[in-house]
This record gives sequence, C-alpha cells and structure tokens, in this order.
Amino acid sequence: MKVLVINCGSSSLKYQLINMENEKVMAKGLVERIGIEGSQLKHQPEGMDKIVVEKPMKDHKDAIKVVLDALLDENYGVIKDMNEISAVGHRVVHGGEKYSGSVLITEDVMKVLEECTHLAPLHNPPNIIGINACKDLMPQTPMVAVFDTAFHQTMPKHAYMYALPYELYEKHGIRRYGFHGTSHKYVSKVAAEQVGKDIKDLKIITCHLGNGASVAAIDGGKSVDTSMGFTPLEGLAMGTRCGDIDPAIVTFLQKEENLSYEEVNNIMNKKSGVLGISGVSSDFRDIENAAFDGNERAQLALDVFHYKVKKYIGAYTAAMGGLDVLVFTAGLGENSPETRFEVCKNMEYLGIKVDAEKNKVRGKIQEISTEDSRVKVFVIPTNEELMIARDTVEIVRGL
Amino acid sequence: MKVLVINCGSSSLKYQLINMENEKVMAKGLVERIGIEGSQLKHQPEGMDKIVVEKPMKDHKDAIKVVLDALLDENYGVIKDMNEISAVGHRVVHGGEKYSGSVLITEDVMKVLEECTHLAPLHNPPNIIGINACKDLMPQTPMVAVFDTAFHQTMPKHAYMYALPYELYEKHGIRRYGFHGTSHKYVSKVAAEQVGKDIKDLKIITCHLGNGASVAAIDGGKSVDTSMGFTPLEGLAMGTRCGDIDPAIVTFLQKEENLSYEEVNNIMNKKSGVLGISGVSSDFRDIENAAFDGNERAQLALDVFHYKVKKYIGAYTAAMGGLDVLVFTAGLGENSPETRFEVCKNMEYLGIKVDAEKNKVRGKIQEISTEDSRVKVFVIPTNEELMIARDTVEIVRGL
Repeated sequence: MKVLVINCGSSSLKYQLINMENEKVMAKGLVERIGIEGSQLKHQPEGMDKIVVEKPMKDHKDAIKVVLDALLDENYGVIKDMNEISAVGHRVVHGGEKYSGSVLITEDVMKVLEECTHLAPLHNPPNIIGINACKDLMPQTPMVAVFDTAFHQTMPKHAYMYALPYELYEKHGIRRYGFHGTSHKYVSKVAAEQVGKDIKDLKIITCHLGNGASVAAIDGGKSVDTSMGFTPLEGLAMGTRCGDIDPAIVTFLQKEENLSYEEVNNIMNKKSGVLGISGVSSDFRDIENAAFDGNERAQLALDVFHYKVKKYIGAYTAAMGGLDVLVFTAGLGENSPETRFEVCKNMEYLGIKVDAEKNKVRGKIQEISTEDSRVKVFVIPTNEELMIARDTVEIVRGL
Repeated sequence: MKVLVINCGSSSLKYQLINMENEKVMAKGLVERIGIEGSQLKHQPEGMDKIVVEKPMKDHKDAIKVVLDALLDENYGVIKDMNEISAVGHRVVHGGEKYSGSVLITEDVMKVLEECTHLAPLHNPPNIIGINACKDLMPQTPMVAVFDTAFHQTMPKHAYMYALPYELYEKHGIRRYGFHGTSHKYVSKVAAEQVGKDIKDLKIITCHLGNGASVAAIDGGKSVDTSMGFTPLEGLAMGTRCGDIDPAIVTFLQKEENLSYEEVNNIMNKKSGVLGISGVSSDFRDIENAAFDGNERAQLALDVFHYKVKKYIGAYTAAMGGLDVLVFTAGLGENSPETRFEVCKNMEYLGIKVDAEKNKVRGKIQEISTEDSRVKVFVIPTNEELMIARDTVEIVRGL
C-alpha cells in the first residue's frame, strides 16, 4: 500500500510518497511560490538525483498536478499508475474540539474544517484548499485528515482552560488546544519502544524544538499538557514567536506605541522570539555562531530559550508527579548538542544526567543519559509524515 | 522608635503605627472612600475597641490628617505628640529598574517615581499623592519608600527578559519586574530562621496566595524568578485576573468581539481568574462552598488555580536546580488547608510530603511537612507592614 502525504501551506506544498509495506519513502518534495511568479517543484526520488521543475502554478490544484506528473514521470517518477496511490493523508492544523484522532475525509468533515477556520485563519484554509485540489484530481482515492491538535485532546479540563470568563470558552472555543501533536505522539511512542516498556506505564516529556517549538507532558501515552495553547504563539520562545508574555504587554503596546492589534500580532509572531532578542536571526545556527563570537544579545537569546524549556520540564514533571523519559526532537532538538546540554544542566535533582560523549549525536535515535540517570533522555528524530501515513493506512484498512 | 507605615490606594489608605523597640503594632486602620461621599476611618488601637470616624475627606491629605488626629486622640489615641513618630514608611508599587532596595525619599526619588508611573498607572499615582500629603503634614519627618518590585531586581536577565524585540525593553522597559516583593522577602527570611539555616544556603519557593497571587523562586536569599511580570496580571490565576494566557487571545478578542484594548484589559483584570471560570465569586471561600455544593465550574476554578501553583513550583525548582523549603502565605496560603493540600498532592517525587494533621493550621507559623519530607513546607503569615517598618528603621538609622 502506497500513501501520499500532503502538507499544504498558503503558497507551498510538501509531499512524501511512502511505501507502507516497508515504511520507506519512495519520493518526497516541495512546491514553492504557488500562485506567485517563479513557482517551482523540488522533487527527490529515493536513490536518484533531486530535480527542479520550474513551471507556472496558479493554484494548489496546479501544484498537485505537477507533483503527480513528477511521481509518474518516465525518468524521475517512482510509480507507473495513479492507482498505485491507495490513499492520501493530509496534515490539517486545527481540528478544534471535534477530533481527538485522524478521520476519513467526508463532506461532514469538510464542514467541520471550515468551522475551525476562525481558530486557525492562517493554517486551515490552505489545508482545505489542498484537500479539495486532491479530491478533484483523485476522486476515487480515500483521503484522511490528520490533525496537529488531535493528540492533545486528552488534556484534562484544568490543563486546557484559561482563567478567562467561561463564556469565552463556550462562545469562541477559547481554550488550550496545543499543536505539533503528530510529532509528540510519534516520538513518545518510539521512546517507549526504546525503553522497552508499555507506554501506559511511562511519564514522558517530549521537547519538539525547531523554529516552532513546544513541550508536551505525556502520561501513560496520553497528552496531559502542552506549551502551545489557543494558537501556536504561546509557550516557549521560538524563532520569531514570543511565547509566554504578560498579556498586559499586548494592550500596553497598543496604547504606548499607538499600534493596531494586527500590528502587535505581527510583532509577536514575526519579530519576536530569539530573532527579537538577538537582533541577529531566527535561525539558531546563526545565533549560536554570533554568541560564540561574543554577541551578548545572541547569548541572551539562547539563555532565554534554554531557560524556558527547562522551566517547562519542571512544570510538566510536577503536572505528572514524576518523570521517566525525556525526549528531544525536531531541528534543534535532534541536531544541537549545546541546546540539550544547556536544558539538562543542573537537573540532577530530578534524576536527569546527560552523558557528554553520547550527547554528541545528531539526527538519529540515541539515548544520551548516563548509565545511572534515573530519567532516560533520548534524541529521537521526528517523522510526522510517517505518522500521518500510518494513521491513513489504519483508517483506510478499517473501511 | 515609632514608625508609621502608609499604603495608599486610589481612594483608600491603610496604616499601622509600629513600636520598633518590640515590633508591636500600637494602632492600625483603614480610610475608605477618600474623595467620595461617605468617607470614613476605621481605627483599631491595640487592646482597645475599634472605632469608626465618619467625616468628609476630600483628598489624601485630609485622610492623613484624620489618621494623625486619631493616633493623637485623648480617648483612643496611642501617642501624645506627633514627634513620637520618628519616620514614615511608604509602600510604593513600582520602582522600575532603578531601585533594588528601599530608599530615603528625596526630590530625586520623587522624580523617578513619576517616571515609573507609566509602568504602574493605577498604583504609583496614589502612592505619590500619599507621600506628598505626608510631607505637607510632617515636613521634618524622614520618609522611606519601600517598593513591591525591589526584591525581584536580583533576577538574572534570562529570567526577566521576554522574547520580544529587544528595542521594546530599551525604549519602554518592557521586562518582568515582579510584585509582592516585600512579602516574598519577609516570609523567606522567617522560613530560613525556622529551618535554622543561613538563607544563603537555601533554595526557597514562596507562594503568596491571596486575591492577587504570585510565586517566587528565592535562591540563597535572592529572588531569581517570580510569576508576576511586567504588570501584576501575569502568572497564576487570581481572584479576577487571568494570569498566563496565550497572548494571541488578546488580539483574537479584539477582532472577534470588536473590543477595544481597554475593554480586553478590563476583562483580563476584573472579570477573569477564578471569578471568570466559576461565575460565582472572586472570593475563594465562596468558591470552595459552591464547589462543595456540587457546582462544577466552581470546582474547575479551584482545580485550575491549584494546578497552576503546582506547575510554578515545578518550574522554579527546575530554575534553581532543587528545593529545600516551600512556603505558603497571604489570605489563602495562610488560611486554606485545602489549597495547600491540593497544591502539594502528588509531589513526593520532589520530596514534598504534607502532614494532614499539621496542615489544619490557619494564620500562624507552622511547619506542615511530615518528619521524613525532604522539602520543609511552612505556613508563614506575611507581614508587609513590619517589613516596611524594618526597612524604614534601617535607612533612618543610617542617616
């Protein structure tokens, strides 16, 4: 069974075709600048050279057509017939309170996705467009929606409710939803396998540290809390997002700087985070280099970032009443020994001890804690596409 | 040496006259409805009946005159001559980054207080009015300003900086300041005395839980982090304040409900917290009663409140790399065994064990942890007035 995994952004589209017999990626790629001059496809068939196709694509339907053509191409394609694609798995950002798992896409599901659009005005619309484009081109192929929020729907009410008027929850659905759910779910499962225990018996904290970053508390395999909230703005400091701040700052800036709420939103989402503190870049590699060269604000940005991750680990250990496994994943979590070292430093009180030698790993599964560390610490590369494909297979097989 | 302690609100004034030879309160009281019809003084001389004086008071100067008259009164006064008051200690909410301790009030200090007004537009103006009124009436008496923010000025930069554009810190002073500093300082000192160790060797978390509530991490006697931030809105859920929320909710509400930033500010400060969730009251006693009677939203409000305190304890233990002493203070912290029980529940992983019998205490110093609890847990009634008076004596003696 071959599954096509699609992740649509507003002007981009990522895809992977995965052979689920062996869970190997047959081809993957990225379409950029959809609807903008200079649109192009970067296509990477497994074991072959990457190719670039430059071609005008006025919308996501055009883009998916180009992707399918590439997958079927005589020279750089990987399948001979469209029918080899048994199902399509779509990443969808926001499933609201309706979906606590992945679902087969039906007309009813599409209605709910539309209803959730006000909760994720930047993310859900391109997801919906991508699904519709695929349905036009492959009307007979079953499609599955895999939500970024679904894994966190197990949070208890005291963890997801804000201390705001209850009516705002009832009327607008203002509550913590959490994101990166597919990633937190995937790496927590792999961690349990690595430890060789049933995930039901483990208290796990997963740190998804990339340009977007979040931490999740996973007790017995269920998400019980996570740092992103109503939107992906809350929680850790990120590449350009501010994470947790005093909410009074939002209104202070409107008053003192005479800014509109859209302008403040833009500052908080695009000009803050480690970029805002350092003034250097939103890319942690640039910031680490600048800090190494003595840039004090770059060092401060890193210190703030590490400190916040550390505090969330402490908070979520308290939430679960203990901790067995700590996982680092995503760009920074997988590839920055410095980040992992700084976050885990001085955490012996919790039984966290990182082995400096083992911690030198980048981008592969490895336990990095010492023999006598009570908490097992792991680097586990995330694989949201595989998780989406697995969910898709499970749902399609059940039809 | 007798010290008068003054705490001015916008239409109220609290005072205590303390004999610093024995640190006993000679008289204390409260003026309400200053500048509003129906102004009155409630005056409580030590060992005598409380008296109420109803009298028009058009401003804070009038109010202080009434207070001084009461202190000197033949029947219910406690001093014979104004000169017995050696010094006045004023509670001031915001000292910005300028003051990390209490200071003798001079013209220069008054200028700084004016400069800090934009940081605390609701609190600093009445504090300034109170100081000026006292100076008019007691021009020869030395006066000291004791700041709610001062104790937290020892926070490291990575704890007080938000992940916002650095320019906002430089231009507007947007950073974490923290409040309730006098209370956190006082109870941490008492805790160290109780434990019989030098505070320099202790990691202490103090939970000031009242209608306003905050947690502080105190490492070696210095505040290294605290939950209130740029304003007293951030952190825990409070009586009517929301505490930590996704900052994107502020702009979402402006957009979806067509609210001005002032209106959202009002919701976050006056209509949120345990009042907002429960819909019952901002008073925890009312909410505990409603929850006992089966009101689910009242129970949820308590659950959210306890959960947030618990998470801060976890986070601050991580910040300090350990914990020796946990302190509960202020209205709820001193008087609600239920709150302390719920917060400390399931924290054995940190070495916190509360003794149910000892925990029945209300309003007095008591260790409430079990014999074998690694972390010592205390109830310690706060006494901001005494702390202000002590600081005042120290500064006046040094003149």
